[in-house]
Amino acid sequence: MQPKVSIIMGSTSDLPVMKKAADFLNDLEIPFEINALSAHRTPAQVEEFAKNAEDRGVKVIIAAAGMAAHLPGVIASMVKIPVIGVPINASLDGLDALLAIVQMPPGIPVATVGINGAQNAGILAAQIIATGDAALAEKVAAFKDSLKDKIVKANQDLAEVKYKFKTN
Amino acid sequence: MQPKVSIIMGSTSDLPVMKKAADFLNDLEIPFEINALSAHRTPAQVEEFAKNAEDRGVKVIIAAAGMAAHLPGVIASMVKIPVIGVPINASLDGLDALLAIVQMPPGIPVATVGINGAQNAGILAAQIIATGDAALAEKVAAFKDSLKDKIVKANQDLAEVKYKFKTN
Amino acid sequence: MQPKVSIIMGSTSDLPVMKKAADFLNDLEIPFEINALSAHRTPAQVEEFAKNAEDRGVKVIIAAAGMAAHLPGVIASMVKIPVIGVPINASLDGLDALLAIVQMPPGIPVATVGINGAQNAGILAAQIIATGDAALAEKVAAFKDSLKDKIVKANQDLAEVKYKFKTN
Amino acid sequence: MQPKVSIIMGSTSDLPVMKKAADFLNDLEIPFEINALSAHRTPAQVEEFAKNAEDRGVKVIIAAAGMAAHLPGVIASMVKIPVIGVPINASLDGLDALLAIVQMPPGIPVATVGINGAQNAGILAAQIIATGDAALAEKVAAFKDSLKDKIVKANQDLAEVKYKFKTN
Amino acid sequence: MQPKVSIIMGSTSDLPVMKKAADFLNDLEIPFEINALSAHRTPAQVEEFAKNAEDRGVKVIIAAAGMAAHLPGVIASMVKIPVIGVPINASLDGLDALLAIVQMPPGIPVATVGINGAQNAGILAAQIIATGDAALAEKVAAFKDSLKDKIVKANQDLAEVKYKFKTN
Amino acid sequence: MQPKVSIIMGSTSDLPVMKKAADFLNDLEIPFEINALSAHRTPAQVEEFAKNAEDRGVKVIIAAAGMAAHLPGVIASMVKIPVIGVPINASLDGLDALLAIVQMPPGIPVATVGINGAQNAGILAAQIIATGDAALAEKVAAFKDSLKDKIVKANQDLAEVKYKFKTN
Amino acid sequence: MQPKVSIIMGSTSDLPVMKKAADFLNDLEIPFEINALSAHRTPAQVEEFAKNAEDRGVKVIIAAAGMAAHLPGVIASMVKIPVIGVPINASLDGLDALLAIVQMPPGIPVATVGINGAQNAGILAAQIIATGDAALAEKVAAFKDSLKDKIVKANQDLAEVKYKFKTN
Amino acid sequence: MQPKVSIIMGSTSDLPVMKKAADFLNDLEIPFEINALSAHRTPAQVEEFAKNAEDRGVKVIIAAAGMAAHLPGVIASMVKIPVIGVPINASLDGLDALLAIVQMPPGIPVATVGINGAQNAGILAAQIIATGDAALAEKVAAFKDSLKDKIVKANQDLAEVKYKFKTN
Repeated sequence: MQPKVSIIMGSTSDLPVMKKAADFLNDLEIPFEINALSAHRTPAQVEEFAKNAEDRGVKVIIAAAGMAAHLPGVIASMVKIPVIGVPINASLDGLDALLAIVQMPPGIPVATVGINGAQNAGILAAQIIATGDAALAEKVAAFKDSLKDKIVKANQDLAEVKYKFKTN
Repeated sequence: MQPKVSIIMGSTSDLPVMKKAADFLNDLEIPFEINALSAHRTPAQVEEFAKNAEDRGVKVIIAAAGMAAHLPGVIASMVKIPVIGVPINASLDGLDALLAIVQMPPGIPVATVGINGAQNAGILAAQIIATGDAALAEKVAAFKDSLKDKIVKANQDLAEVKYKFKTN
Repeated sequence: MQPKVSIIMGSTSDLPVMKKAADFLNDLEIPFEINALSAHRTPAQVEEFAKNAEDRGVKVIIAAAGMAAHLPGVIASMVKIPVIGVPINASLDGLDALLAIVQMPPGIPVATVGINGAQNAGILAAQIIATGDAALAEKVAAFKDSLKDKIVKANQDLAEVKYKFKTN
Repeated sequence: MQPKVSIIMGSTSDLPVMKKAADFLNDLEIPFEINALSAHRTPAQVEEFAKNAEDRGVKVIIAAAGMAAHLPGVIASMVKIPVIGVPINASLDGLDALLAIVQMPPGIPVATVGINGAQNAGILAAQIIATGDAALAEKVAAFKDSLKDKIVKANQDLAEVKYKFKTN
Repeated sequence: MQPKVSIIMGSTSDLPVMKKAADFLNDLEIPFEINALSAHRTPAQVEEFAKNAEDRGVKVIIAAAGMAAHLPGVIASMVKIPVIGVPINASLDGLDALLAIVQMPPGIPVATVGINGAQNAGILAAQIIATGDAALAEKVAAFKDSLKDKIVKANQDLAEVKYKFKTN
Repeated sequence: MQPKVSIIMGSTSDLPVMKKAADFLNDLEIPFEINALSAHRTPAQVEEFAKNAEDRGVKVIIAAAGMAAHLPGVIASMVKIPVIGVPINASLDGLDALLAIVQMPPGIPVATVGINGAQNAGILAAQIIATGDAALAEKVAAFKDSLKDKIVKANQDLAEVKYKFKTN
Repeated sequence: MQPKVSIIMGSTSDLPVMKKAADFLNDLEIPFEINALSAHRTPAQVEEFAKNAEDRGVKVIIAAAGMAAHLPGVIASMVKIPVIGVPINASLDGLDALLAIVQMPPGIPVATVGINGAQNAGILAAQIIATGDAALAEKVAAFKDSLKDKIVKANQDLAEVKYKFKTN
Repeated sequence: MQPKVSIIMGSTSDLPVMKKAADFLNDLEIPFEINALSAHRTPAQVEEFAKNAEDRGVKVIIAAAGMAAHLPGVIASMVKIPVIGVPINASLDGLDALLAIVQMPPGIPVATVGINGAQNAGILAAQIIATGDAALAEKVAAFKDSLKDKIVKANQDLAEVKYKFKTN
């Protein structure tokens, strides 16, 4: 089984956040891999990884990083496929990572999601692959439809909240 | 000719920035459309647009907005295809638009690029479509290769800079 | 009993904050409703809600949201009545939600209160309705007068603080 | 003719911004007054003004201020009617004024609009008065409907933009 | 005994921070008073307080406030004596209070100290009074000299830190 | 004539801003001196200056600095008299200078005014000296009273603004 | 044994952070000293220290400070050797200390590392000394090579993470 | 002549800022080279450059970058010699570049100077080389001594400023 999405992170300390991306891909039955890479600690391996990713069938890369978060941008400079960046909150509420990922110079976009937004990174990866995969597009649509369930449940809970002057 | 990318913006005042997305798509011969929509002024038309975009063959939407930039997220909530958000600098150096676009709640990602990063939005759209289009993937690769030209030229210019103790 | 104020939020996780708005309205005997809605998860229901709110007698809407907080602005674009926005602190100390709510483009104001400022949202709703309701205006005036009680109590407590060189 | 809205500002240097509030109120034929007041220069007159405003028929106050913007909050502490605050960009891109207006303590809300958002302040004032004035509510509705005109015009302009691969 | 310094705060919740100002004044045997006042809850009492403070012999006022911190500036607009502002961290790490206190318009300075900087407010008050009180100036000088004690003690502690390659 | 206030700055480029402090002191006939000093370029002279200032009769020091603004704090650590810090906007809208001046550690306060707030620094210096100088206190009171003139003039100007629905 | 690196801090409360600099220097067998100094509490000792540091063989100074962090810049103004600044997070997430250290005026650089980045300060000090010490350069190279070990270990841990659709 | 310092930048648009680093090195007769490199456009050349820099005798690298400024950190991950990072103000007042350079993870320091602080980067490079080069150390000392000249000149200019109550 070849991976379609490759999740990379600089440290296993990012795993509790990034697990939500893996969970989502697994739920939608999209094959994926998880690797530790560091733009700063293993630059040679990053290049090696980048060269081979497309050959191994990877269509989207999800890269997480905190602080002066260079990994998503560095990977993006080495591959032709889309790279999704996840800013990790490791300092300054994650604002440093957000700016270090999203403010890429012209020519090398990184598709950035919110701070610690790993599930959204998984969803976005699925949406990207679904542009060329009708079966997956239906799964994405089903997931999107399911989002309203949380609101239905919330309304049920709110119906239990009692006030004399509450009318519903 | 059906559009593959749909560029939307809230006002023609965003056009000077967003032109760079259109230029890039045109250069890569990717059919696209440009429309003005406003999450706040024409909410009904936004919904109409969203419902039909996929049927018209649109695979990626690029949405630009400034200030309390809701358009990219509102569109993203209505479609299954990827939405790329471009924060426009209309106040606070564009930081308000960046946060209002990128910090989406779980379930509805917006692929955010840098402030005023319209060319990168065009490139990212091409990369996304190229995940299912080998011919386009080659064009993207060629573009990526061409990025080094600017550095070659810069080095030629820097070679002209003269100092007594400059060694190159 | 028809509601005069409609409180909406994206999740029951906002309820501990928003409860203070409900408490205030209840204390002033202003009928209100509470509903869960999401600009991103249930856009169709948001529109449905907006269309009907005024017909059901709602005069003011209080909308709470965190992160890329679109709900208040999206509702404001669909109704003619005033919308009060409450930025919820869910990330970045609530600064993202504040900017995403307050920085609305010309034409669609949202009356924004402070971060997690739910009680103030309730008070503001009462003040707005009171512009056309003399009996309520008196209740608001009485509440405003009562604010000084907390200062009177604080001065009593401070009188207990003892220092050799404290003169009061 | 008694004013229904009172616009106050600390200096005539705020007039170019605040003119848009006056323009809107005038267009909707809502009587209004404009006065210069300063929380810091004329505190006694601020109190005098506040005491009399309601008696003169004022239903909403629009207060503009920059920097450590105290005027909206100080007025709000003295009146029972709603106060709309307009942060003026006089330093730090207006972020200081925004925070000094919106972050009011419990008990004294200020309905804050965006930085330099004077037109929105005028619209919000109209919406507030319209909660008790059906004729004005219709004018507000008509204004809201007219907002889409700018988008229609923008689409006409965008139709003129020509690219080989533009499809609309 | 007449107070020379008046400490004011909006709530007893500020007392744990502001206690350090009182402690310092007490240590230097400077008579002081502590009162609760609120620019927003008891504006009339604020004015009353301001009118009388100078007559009661007060030479410096220390005013603490958080969020949209108006109390120091409002007091400063009503008195001729120096007002020291202490921004309290109640939200946004205290940045809102800092800007709402320090960014005063021309004509009404507030002598601002750091966020939660109550001891420094006490010291500054002593320094101000000491400009006209030679005996107090000597006490301030003695306090300033004592500051080095903490460094002497720190060096003793650091001398205990052992490393093979530590040379001192 | 001995100076009572000493204005120091790091560069004559700060003079256009700091001139307003000098103007105010001159208007109130408070003798002052102006010197260039730099915490970083002439640390020895800073110490020399600090040692002698009090002996020369200086009662308050006004120190201006931009960027990593150390001059006010460094001077404050060397003298017993109050030091007023003026953050100069030389980068980052002056936020760096503000934080580098106001966030002093316990023991060494700097009385900070707003960004580029030189006139307020002059006023504060006068207020401080006036705590021990009744004649100067009257001049300060007269100046404070004159502040309302600007509001009177502004109201005259605003009376000229004509709208059909303007009531004053 | 003469120290080659001098670590200075304002308080033993900085020791838990700064210990990582000492640990690194010790591991690489670089002699170092640790002293408490304060730009504000012991300015005379700071000058004394600076005068002697170079004579005692010190080649690099590492200075830590929080809030309005003046120590690194003040030391840098007094010595000719490189000074490394470590911003300590004591308020505002350390942003105040970062700006107060890094934004030095022309002429007096401080080599700034990240907030609480003490280990990096130790590494940088070693790198600087290694520019003139080939044996140390090899140790630095060995350390740099060892950085990849953490990634190797992380990949082993990630290999243990099991999902049905995880391919590695 | 072998370069001792290598200045790298991503674009000739950075040259007007970075020229001040070159000027300083030239003035102190330190051989240097200038090259254009981009972490994102020419990653392979960056690696090639990094491998060879030390062999060519380079002792310090000065790397400038704006926005999501990755170049300094990427280079630092590939070399053992010190890397000085210069954040360029290309957006957000340079705050994005500052954070993307300074907030490096443990193991890979970048010696960061202020925003656009190119001259300081040149001085710091000289200081670093001077730790192993006594002749250069004297030149650095002479430069440091010359810094006071600007203050002497400023005092001469300030002596020309005339006020009735100015005492010097």
